Amino acid sequence: MSVPSYIKDLIAHREKGKSLRAPFYSAPDILDLDMEVFFRKHWIFVAVEPQLPEPGDCITVEIGKTSVLLLRGDDMEIRGFHNICRHRGAKLIDEPEATIGNIVCRYHGWTYNEDGELILAEHMGKDFDKTCHGLKTVHVRSIAGLLFICLAKNPPEDIEEMAQTMERYIAPHDIANCKVAYTADLVEEGNWKLTLENNRECYHCEGTHPQLTVPLSEFGFGFSPDEMDERRTADVNKYLSLLESEHKRWEAAGLPSAEVDKLSNTTSFRCIRLPLMGEGESHTLDTKIACKKLLGDFKDAKLGGLSFWHNPNSWHHFMSDHIVTFASFPLSPDRTLVRTTWLVHKDAIEGEDYNLDNLKQVWMMTNQQDADLVRLAQLGSEDPAYEQGPYSEYTEPHVEALCEWYIERHKAHMPADTIEMADA
Amino acid sequence: MSVPSYIKDLIAHREKGKSLRAPFYSAPDILDLDMEVFFRKHWIFVAVEPQLPEPGDCITVEIGKTSVLLLRGDDMEIRGFHNICRHRGAKLIDEPEATIGNIVCRYHGWTYNEDGELILAEHMGKDFDKTCHGLKTVHVRSIAGLLFICLAKNPPEDIEEMAQTMERYIAPHDIANCKVAYTADLVEEGNWKLTLENNRECYHCEGTHPQLTVPLSEFGFGFSPDEMDERRTADVNKYLSLLESEHKRWEAAGLPSAEVDKLSNTTSFRCIRLPLMGEGESHTLDTKIACKKLLGDFKDAKLGGLSFWHNPNSWHHFMSDHIVTFASFPLSPDRTLVRTTWLVHKDAIEGEDYNLDNLKQVWMMTNQQDADLVRLAQLGSEDPAYEQGPYSEYTEPHVEALCEWYIERHKAHMPADTIEMADA
Amino acid sequence: MSVPSYIKDLIAHREKGKSLRAPFYSAPDILDLDMEVFFRKHWIFVAVEPQLPEPGDCITVEIGKTSVLLLRGDDMEIRGFHNICRHRGAKLIDEPEATIGNIVCRYHGWTYNEDGELILAEHMGKDFDKTCHGLKTVHVRSIAGLLFICLAKNPPEDIEEMAQTMERYIAPHDIANCKVAYTADLVEEGNWKLTLENNRECYHCEGTHPQLTVPLSEFGFGFSPDEMDERRTADVNKYLSLLESEHKRWEAAGLPSAEVDKLSNTTSFRCIRLPLMGEGESHTLDTKIACKKLLGDFKDAKLGGLSFWHNPNSWHHFMSDHIVTFASFPLSPDRTLVRTTWLVHKDAIEGEDYNLDNLKQVWMMTNQQDADLVRLAQLGSEDPAYEQGPYSEYTEPHVEALCEWYIERHKAHMPADTIEMADA
Repeated sequence: MSVPSYIKDLIAHREKGKSLRAPFYSAPDILDLDMEVFFRKHWIFVAVEPQLPEPGDCITVEIGKTSVLLLRGDDMEIRGFHNICRHRGAKLIDEPEATIGNIVCRYHGWTYNEDGELILAEHMGKDFDKTCHGLKTVHVRSIAGLLFICLAKNPPEDIEEMAQTMERYIAPHDIANCKVAYTADLVEEGNWKLTLENNRECYHCEGTHPQLTVPLSEFGFGFSPDEMDERRTADVNKYLSLLESEHKRWEAAGLPSAEVDKLSNTTSFRCIRLPLMGEGESHTLDTKIACKKLLGDFKDAKLGGLSFWHNPNSWHHFMSDHIVTFASFPLSPDRTLVRTTWLVHKDAIEGEDYNLDNLKQVWMMTNQQDADLVRLAQLGSEDPAYEQGPYSEYTEPHVEALCEWYIERHKAHMPADTIEMADA
Repeated sequence: MSVPSYIKDLIAHREKGKSLRAPFYSAPDILDLDMEVFFRKHWIFVAVEPQLPEPGDCITVEIGKTSVLLLRGDDMEIRGFHNICRHRGAKLIDEPEATIGNIVCRYHGWTYNEDGELILAEHMGKDFDKTCHGLKTVHVRSIAGLLFICLAKNPPEDIEEMAQTMERYIAPHDIANCKVAYTADLVEEGNWKLTLENNRECYHCEGTHPQLTVPLSEFGFGFSPDEMDERRTADVNKYLSLLESEHKRWEAAGLPSAEVDKLSNTTSFRCIRLPLMGEGESHTLDTKIACKKLLGDFKDAKLGGLSFWHNPNSWHHFMSDHIVTFASFPLSPDRTLVRTTWLVHKDAIEGEDYNLDNLKQVWMMTNQQDADLVRLAQLGSEDPAYEQGPYSEYTEPHVEALCEWYIERHKAHMPADTIEMADA
Repeated sequence: MSVPSYIKDLIAHREKGKSLRAPFYSAPDILDLDMEVFFRKHWIFVAVEPQLPEPGDCITVEIGKTSVLLLRGDDMEIRGFHNICRHRGAKLIDEPEATIGNIVCRYHGWTYNEDGELILAEHMGKDFDKTCHGLKTVHVRSIAGLLFICLAKNPPEDIEEMAQTMERYIAPHDIANCKVAYTADLVEEGNWKLTLENNRECYHCEGTHPQLTVPLSEFGFGFSPDEMDERRTADVNKYLSLLESEHKRWEAAGLPSAEVDKLSNTTSFRCIRLPLMGEGESHTLDTKIACKKLLGDFKDAKLGGLSFWHNPNSWHHFMSDHIVTFASFPLSPDRTLVRTTWLVHKDAIEGEDYNLDNLKQVWMMTNQQDADLVRLAQLGSEDPAYEQGPYSEYTEPHVEALCEWYIERHKAHMPADTIEMADA
């Protein structure tokens, strides 16, 4: 893939501390390059294991034009394949999820087993070699039940660092014994980076998210020390003291809670467990648990919220009673799919242990509010009068870190010279 | 902005007396250039003052991707701003019209006063300089209540000539004491120049506009002297005699009426007051006034119709009882928004002084008929078999003048060499 | 039209026996080139004569952006014109079919007679020469009632070979005495070549078309000799024996039946009359005739199905009681219109001689099933993981022939050097 010189210049000369230049949010050729660099060469979060609990269960995921089939085999392993037939290229599984025996192409009946091997192809004659026509594989990695894939031949190796860290943090929430309570797809009318930037700060929360700011404290996401009156100083100190005591309590109970910031890794991530306000239990309007049946071995409902952010496409919140995961996928320069999945204990019964509306209310409303802001940001970024503005060092450092990572990863994958794309 | 050589060639070699070459109506890069030259460097008609009568009233106007905010201040002045926040570029006012105190960004609460100065920005720290982050301004000019804007740093100065001329013609219709009776947005499926070309001649009126040709005489828009029989000659002479006598009568009453043709000015315009048929009062199906309460100080209803055409995007008709203004905005190479606004005296009461259906009927139907012709013209212009055809020197001279102005303005803004666009 | 070098390379290096390279199915510039080479320089099937039986009847056909008007004159001849006015280029006839006197432009009333001569143009002055402004003509050729057009100045001359062959085969079905019983437009979400490839093999029929495989035998479209057990061998032999005996019977009755394969001609075509299963009469679910009134002079209902395939855009089936024709037109790289027309004897009465649902059922369902496969094939071809797969030499030889013809025709029209497109 050759990179136009104007893009090279934009990447070479990012101004630190400011939002990205306008073309990054709307130029079709920059989206093409983003897809190539971020969504084909990095680890992407696509699903959770409870979406395919049994042998023969499969799901399909669309990454741009690439369709990936994830299939759980009889050995309970999850394998990834490119979801197209090796005969005339027809898409194999057309549904988002299915339960199948073998993988059978609807066009001419070519049939593959759970290892992707071609086991049936009629009329091809005696000289045809089936072993050369198996499905192409895709790397899959489960981190404590969160499924990541990588489309590259040689995926980034530092997935190990994220895996080792996050398994410790997530394991107590026991995704293996969860079920999907609800999934919501929302198309935000903005570039995928505006979706992420919106997610990486809570500067906008106070004015935008009346529901989310019930359980979340604004102080968990930074503040300027220059604008503090006495009362605000007291509030901050109270929050910091709570954070310290809760971290001690949780760590003592075997729950890793301290912040980990690996945002400049190739496989970029950050996590922290934060106390919640009010009853302190969950992301709900009454700040109590939404599901009576707690996850894993939890006895204590008051575990705050473990947040895990991963670049380029996911964020997750783990409470004592439920988990919410978010995956984002670019659809076009100005449209991004955000897929939200709510998990509860697999034995929890809707209507008895949890009320679905209560479970999903905070994030359904928050997502819609964020989508509206992303839309306004996209409209502004396409305005010829757009100019980069300054990030707050107090409330937007993770947006700045995201932009830095984005530029650095582009630089790392920039061809030394203009190289024509190899045959697909 | 660099200009492709094929466009330079097309501009350099227009064939006089004929419609434009096909790419002018459909090529995306020519639309981009049109937006740059005509909608960013010339004066554009966008609204009328009665749309924002009180302090705090504001409207937003979209010129391509550029959003402009017009706000009436406490001093009753109307100011224009680029409608995006200087922080992360979010669009500020999302609604077509609103009444506000300060201008507050919905994203992070940055707040601007009516002069566009940034007066509040939380969390930015003590070193942040608000004075460098005010809203960017846009030139606004009211001509007797018609609002024109220009996005260029240095707008064309000959707006003064149009202002001095048109204020004399329009002032008696007293827009300041009007109110908006109705607004209709219509998307025509054609290039913006096809919309204008359609408007700049009435050769098509007889076969297309059964309603409009009730008040309008076909002879007011030219005719071929070579196709006259005795009866037609008599009709023409009768019309010309009416034109002469009415002009005398109107001018004597203080109403400028004679034709002014400044179509080759940078700020291109033309106007004339024409007699109407039948009762001669207004653009209605019964040719009588649609609103009992006359505009300004008018006592006489029979004032014909003052027409004012301005390039690149507006036309207007002023009668004794109401005003109709039309603004057109390109949406894509083959789609154009036409916004029509009907004004009546601000004290006129709907249902008592005027019937809304009667008021808007002629132009609602005429607009729709024109939209259909523009659609057919667009389809034809995209047909590979399209060939430029000849304009009638008798009924299409103003279409020819439009094309000449269009080409000349492009030439005036053509960079001497291929110059890359400066940073936005 | 200049051809990008990557397209030249793709055309120069097709790998025989495999599906085409991915860009052929989705690249916009390859579609542009396809339109130029195949739909502007070859003979295209567009309609059947019974669509315009009387003088003054006309139809319009859209080939990409080109609109063609076919008009039957008082002399019963069908003439073809570019469907745009020579004045300002407006599209003339906006409806798919109409009955007219002269051709009158809706914009300014310019009027053309049935020979395309301009006979009325008001206001153009005495020096205007009408004879220079007649409609541009399009080549039209009727083959036994099937209407083909060619947009090129010099159409391929081997239309004669197709005409002489196919008139012998089709004439007994007597299209001149048919009427249109039904027309269905279906937009397939795939490239036009995927629509054709799907039509040029029946390898997919068994798994996809439960209705079509009632009258059609899978053995009529090839099979691999390497995968035969005893029972299958017996079935094949039985079919081949039926084919031989029916061909003898039909030829003796004056019905040409033998296969003609001229797929490598410029005007590429193939035909064969095949026996049908069950009652052997028609493409119906009960394999009996759908219309009691047989076509032409037929007395025998059991005439199998004469299939006629023509490149680049049509296929046709002729039975004793009805005819089905299919025309395909690219709409975009990934959308193709398939227009299906059912013909019965002009004296047949619906509800009495035929039931419309029964008549169209098999192909309505088959078309929909094919559309679904074409959609899957398109999705797969756009997947970056797409790789060309092998065609079966037994069941996909005509797909291979199609691809070879496609590449050869591109080579034949490839400019020696990069040549800019002449003025349209």
